[in-house]
Amino acid sequence: MHIRIINPTITTSWEQESLDAYRLAAAPDTEMSITTLEQGTVSLESHRDLAVVIPGILARAVEAQDEGVDAVIVDCMLDPAVRSARELLDIPVFGPAEPTMHLAAMLGNRFSVLTVLGSLVAMVEQQVDRYGLSRRLASVRSLEIPVMELDDDMDRTLLVAIEVSASAVKDDGADVIIPGCTCLAGKARLIQAALSDRGFDVTVIDPPSVATRTVEAVTSMGLSHSKRTYPSRAPKPYRWPGLLLPT
Amino acid sequence: MHIRIINPTITTSWEQESLDAYRLAAAPDTEMSITTLEQGTVSLESHRDLAVVIPGILARAVEAQDEGVDAVIVDCMLDPAVRSARELLDIPVFGPAEPTMHLAAMLGNRFSVLTVLGSLVAMVEQQVDRYGLSRRLASVRSLEIPVMELDDDMDRTLLVAIEVSASAVKDDGADVIIPGCTCLAGKARLIQAALSDRGFDVTVIDPPSVATRTVEAVTSMGLSHSKRTYPSRAPKPYRWPGLLLPT
Amino acid sequence: MHIRIINPTITTSWEQESLDAYRLAAAPDTEMSITTLEQGTVSLESHRDLAVVIPGILARAVEAQDEGVDAVIVDCMLDPAVRSARELLDIPVFGPAEPTMHLAAMLGNRFSVLTVLGSLVAMVEQQVDRYGLSRRLASVRSLEIPVMELDDDMDRTLLVAIEVSASAVKDDGADVIIPGCTCLAGKARLIQAALSDRGFDVTVIDPPSVATRTVEAVTSMGLSHSKRTYPSRAPKPYRWPGLLLPT
Amino acid sequence: MHIRIINPTITTSWEQESLDAYRLAAAPDTEMSITTLEQGTVSLESHRDLAVVIPGILARAVEAQDEGVDAVIVDCMLDPAVRSARELLDIPVFGPAEPTMHLAAMLGNRFSVLTVLGSLVAMVEQQVDRYGLSRRLASVRSLEIPVMELDDDMDRTLLVAIEVSASAVKDDGADVIIPGCTCLAGKARLIQAALSDRGFDVTVIDPPSVATRTVEAVTSMGLSHSKRTYPSRAPKPYRWPGLLLPT
Amino acid sequence: MHIRIINPTITTSWEQESLDAYRLAAAPDTEMSITTLEQGTVSLESHRDLAVVIPGILARAVEAQDEGVDAVIVDCMLDPAVRSARELLDIPVFGPAEPTMHLAAMLGNRFSVLTVLGSLVAMVEQQVDRYGLSRRLASVRSLEIPVMELDDDMDRTLLVAIEVSASAVKDDGADVIIPGCTCLAGKARLIQAALSDRGFDVTVIDPPSVATRTVEAVTSMGLSHSKRTYPSRAPKPYRWPGLLLPT
Amino acid sequence: MHIRIINPTITTSWEQESLDAYRLAAAPDTEMSITTLEQGTVSLESHRDLAVVIPGILARAVEAQDEGVDAVIVDCMLDPAVRSARELLDIPVFGPAEPTMHLAAMLGNRFSVLTVLGSLVAMVEQQVDRYGLSRRLASVRSLEIPVMELDDDMDRTLLVAIEVSASAVKDDGADVIIPGCTCLAGKARLIQAALSDRGFDVTVIDPPSVATRTVEAVTSMGLSHSKRTYPSRAPKPYRWPGLLLPT
Repeated sequence: MHIRIINPTITTSWEQESLDAYRLAAAPDTEMSITTLEQGTVSLESHRDLAVVIPGILARAVEAQDEGVDAVIVDCMLDPAVRSARELLDIPVFGPAEPTMHLAAMLGNRFSVLTVLGSLVAMVEQQVDRYGLSRRLASVRSLEIPVMELDDDMDRTLLVAIEVSASAVKDDGADVIIPGCTCLAGKARLIQAALSDRGFDVTVIDPPSVATRTVEAVTSMGLSHSKRTYPSRAPKPYRWPGLLLPT
Repeated sequence: MHIRIINPTITTSWEQESLDAYRLAAAPDTEMSITTLEQGTVSLESHRDLAVVIPGILARAVEAQDEGVDAVIVDCMLDPAVRSARELLDIPVFGPAEPTMHLAAMLGNRFSVLTVLGSLVAMVEQQVDRYGLSRRLASVRSLEIPVMELDDDMDRTLLVAIEVSASAVKDDGADVIIPGCTCLAGKARLIQAALSDRGFDVTVIDPPSVATRTVEAVTSMGLSHSKRTYPSRAPKPYRWPGLLLPT
Repeated sequence: MHIRIINPTITTSWEQESLDAYRLAAAPDTEMSITTLEQGTVSLESHRDLAVVIPGILARAVEAQDEGVDAVIVDCMLDPAVRSARELLDIPVFGPAEPTMHLAAMLGNRFSVLTVLGSLVAMVEQQVDRYGLSRRLASVRSLEIPVMELDDDMDRTLLVAIEVSASAVKDDGADVIIPGCTCLAGKARLIQAALSDRGFDVTVIDPPSVATRTVEAVTSMGLSHSKRTYPSRAPKPYRWPGLLLPT
Repeated sequence: MHIRIINPTITTSWEQESLDAYRLAAAPDTEMSITTLEQGTVSLESHRDLAVVIPGILARAVEAQDEGVDAVIVDCMLDPAVRSARELLDIPVFGPAEPTMHLAAMLGNRFSVLTVLGSLVAMVEQQVDRYGLSRRLASVRSLEIPVMELDDDMDRTLLVAIEVSASAVKDDGADVIIPGCTCLAGKARLIQAALSDRGFDVTVIDPPSVATRTVEAVTSMGLSHSKRTYPSRAPKPYRWPGLLLPT
Repeated sequence: MHIRIINPTITTSWEQESLDAYRLAAAPDTEMSITTLEQGTVSLESHRDLAVVIPGILARAVEAQDEGVDAVIVDCMLDPAVRSARELLDIPVFGPAEPTMHLAAMLGNRFSVLTVLGSLVAMVEQQVDRYGLSRRLASVRSLEIPVMELDDDMDRTLLVAIEVSASAVKDDGADVIIPGCTCLAGKARLIQAALSDRGFDVTVIDPPSVATRTVEAVTSMGLSHSKRTYPSRAPKPYRWPGLLLPT
Repeated sequence: MHIRIINPTITTSWEQESLDAYRLAAAPDTEMSITTLEQGTVSLESHRDLAVVIPGILARAVEAQDEGVDAVIVDCMLDPAVRSARELLDIPVFGPAEPTMHLAAMLGNRFSVLTVLGSLVAMVEQQVDRYGLSRRLASVRSLEIPVMELDDDMDRTLLVAIEVSASAVKDDGADVIIPGCTCLAGKARLIQAALSDRGFDVTVIDPPSVATRTVEAVTSMGLSHSKRTYPSRAPKPYRWPGLLLPT
């Protein structure tokens, strides 16, 4: 099985780290590759950013299916372009947030999502609404660390993540924690252990791992999204500069 | 007051008809202009179509604000790019669906939306969810007329719209009808009269008219969307062909 | 267009101030008049108060339609008698709260309502439930100033309103503020500016202005409430002292 | 214990029948009395009718508490004036609909309400919303018999009630039936037996009986409504003709 | 009328106290008896505990119906085995929580439940969800007193219950309090008086009393649960040690 | 990895078939074993049946963890004893319904569940409520074939399943089908192909496969349920015949 990760930005330097995050939970015989956008922006933090990367994601998704891969993951907690890509593709398409939030709802009563920026809180809340899981959301909490400092001092970032998670448990009643920042990929067990040391017996889930396992499962069962919900659309004339757009 | 209508397609032949639809309910001193996309596709009937027009809509929206207009309306019942445009602009931005559905919720117990294609039904249902009005939705019903025949035989299209509306009232319990097809713009009174003749005392609302009046009201009261929900985002490097993209 | 404001109390001294509040956002050619109840009580702060003013409001509403006005606004944030008046009238009838809350839901993620008395909080919460907008409510907060002191020291009242609004934003996550006290009519911009100075970029909405603009819009589009939801009722014998009651 | 039934109309001829309906399930030592309005209308079938009877109900309710009765029931499935009477009284006040719908929700998965007129369906649906029980509502169905014929041919009325109930079970999935027409008071067992003969093992509940038993229970436990939800309101000047109004 | 209380544990020493709690609100001619399980565990504080007592409760319930009693109450705020017992019996079966929560929803806007252990909070929240009353729940709060100390120092337990109730009113907005700990049975009036002294005019409800009155009411009206929701199941082979199990 | 399937009945003849159903989607190196109850009943079709098998399931679950297996699946679409087993175990415990319904919610807008008996419909609806997925449920539909005939004529059973699925799509708007009858395990692709031939492009999901893949994923990621939601309970005295019960 070959899974294509789409890095939904133009920042190629993230490729290796992303690939490693998704590979972490992959089956031994799962092949994974990553591709970056030619057009778009450097990171995704707003509706505007989503708008300028979606066409590029669709182009990469169609390209992936044409190349014969078995499934596609879009590497961003906002699950960008997943619905539109499903109209264009027959193979499974997932982002990390939707399967992680559904798993969280299965493993405990309420979950909290950690995000980097306060300005993303409303976007994540609306995403939870869209997935129909609002009753199960304890809170969306922001780390409030400037993005540029996140990687500089990974120890401090982790410490803040643990503090914010502890508050989510104590004050918001979270039973499950979703570290929804790329910088925390692969750190779920570490955060869970630290919370356990403080007496909080909660489950902490790693979104890239859940995405990989969900896509492997869906693909290996021969399943995909319902074409009744995401019907294939007839080709249509379009005018677009430069990039070969999916029709 | 100057309102800019953005035709979110590359089909310039619709400009006059659209402008007339939005002008219908405008105050005498409201100036209205329309602009069409340079890049995108010919009509909007899928998530894919939305994806390829949103960047162009944003470009037109930023251009409109730069030119000093007072408000922007995106002319499509899917309200495309409204949330992302609100991050980029300070002036009010609306599509026709959101204010029309809220008004419908105020004028009666349940509303039904008429759409052209069966494949749009799920998209409109999810839109109603997103606006938080699901409890007030009676049904989304499709006219099931091939798009190309809609304008060819306007009499037949109207007759079908009346039949489908009557079923929405009788079978789904609709109290208010929203004719959500562009081809029915300006026909609300006519449909309401025909339904009244059949004994159905329901209200039929014209979405372009509601959009114009809502935008006029919001603008004249000196209001706009909350920047706390739609914060202005810092400029960001992007790579994009041809078109001057909003940053 | 002639809009009749119904002051739903027996306190005639409020007439000029109310009329000014509703006129603020009116179109130049909109005629506005106000009428006060003959029977009822001096102010509306409870279910009991509503009970004793509703018959009088209905009498005034029927009188207004008989005199040929085009629409009716009942001047109270509890929207008293709106549903029953709609059964009796064919012309549009609105209170200020319903259109203001729907507009707030369109302009931001969550809204807070300011009210004068703590004992009104539960009534406003139930009103939001009734309009189906509970998911969008951040909070209902009371100014906790004795009514008699509200007008005495308008500067202090404004200051308190700004403080309470700031708490609604910080602690309850409000994106939009609705000053639901009559004494704050026309002060929305001022409060919004003060909140902006403190770093809260929220939208503040003036309910009387929204009511006027909504009624103007609905009337000018030739719309009214659905008679299927609010059917005209057959005349009926009634026994009632003094006042000519609507049948 | 003395329970006062308030007949919320001016139709004195209904007194004996109503009193008998509420007495049916009363404890042997419960005293019951009935009072009819001096001012109001002949029957309750609309928001307008509610408006003109509420002041009279409040007057009768205050009078009842002053006379030392232990509890008050307002005899109408629309539960008119219950909330406002609770502000004025310390003793329990109930209508038949609220406790019957809550009991229905305890005895089965979904309930249907039978009503007389199609024009009452929306009012009953909104009432179920207000009580927070919408998820448990299978349907509101109307008998569609002209009111004047209801009593004329009681056999036919019963037959229609049984037919409509059977449809509610088969087509709407009702597990519990609430005969919400005064004319069906005391017929619950009969309807249940007839449905059972047709193979529908559902429970049919008599609203006046439930109201009596609930009020007896609440009163004998020394309980009443929460004054935090229904605070006593300060007396207030009012102007009202003829009738001594509650202050 | 004869009501059988089932003590859903193997702790016989609780029998007299339980019987007294349920008798408190019973009609003079209501006979009450209690029975304890032969197999099970000593108290109910977890899903596991429920699992091991349910077969024994069913055996006692079938035995009760066979002995000719008129109704059954299972004495535990988790309402254990109520749904499965309803399949086996034709007579009414209730636990104390469901009717108490529905009554609380009728007497005020929001209710809070007091429980003994923090680990029961999530179980009670899910119970409220199951009864469809989440919108009306203010909070579930735990006394946080070790179970063994509850009865030792009843004065302290009461004091803590009053403190926790006061917080539920102030901080969570509760209008009605449900003391959901067995140790507080019969203390509702006392707690209500203490809260009233502190200025909190809320209603406090005694669950065993409500259970008794509800079961008396349902039984005396000749009602029971809907067999469409709880169909009688065909007998079935089973293998079970020792105890004669219900088939 | 070793997954233990618990057959929650005393019917040993189902063991091989069940094991094969769960093995179908297992990774090559996943070991699977099955165990049957010593005490309980022959099949699960009611709340009563659940009551008499849960203690036996718990005993088998504790035994499985003691033997060192990595995860437990309870083989029944009612997910019996999953919550109570999670209190007793640290390793993951799942039934097939919960992960299948969550996956269905990810793959399309609305899902329908096929069940064998009409009397199970209400139980499955309440299960969907409990998982918080009611908005995404199109319908629960019963095959209405006597259980004993299900296996006798597998061709006819399949044909009926396809017919009922087609109705769920056409009449209830299902986008995803969950064949929730054990007899249809492993037939998802076949049903999907047959529906596709009739023009219904929906996704059909095999619950045992989803259960296996979910449990493999959760286990391999080192995750389990949140002990905050399912706390380990202190050992407790119990009295129980024959079988060594979990403490």
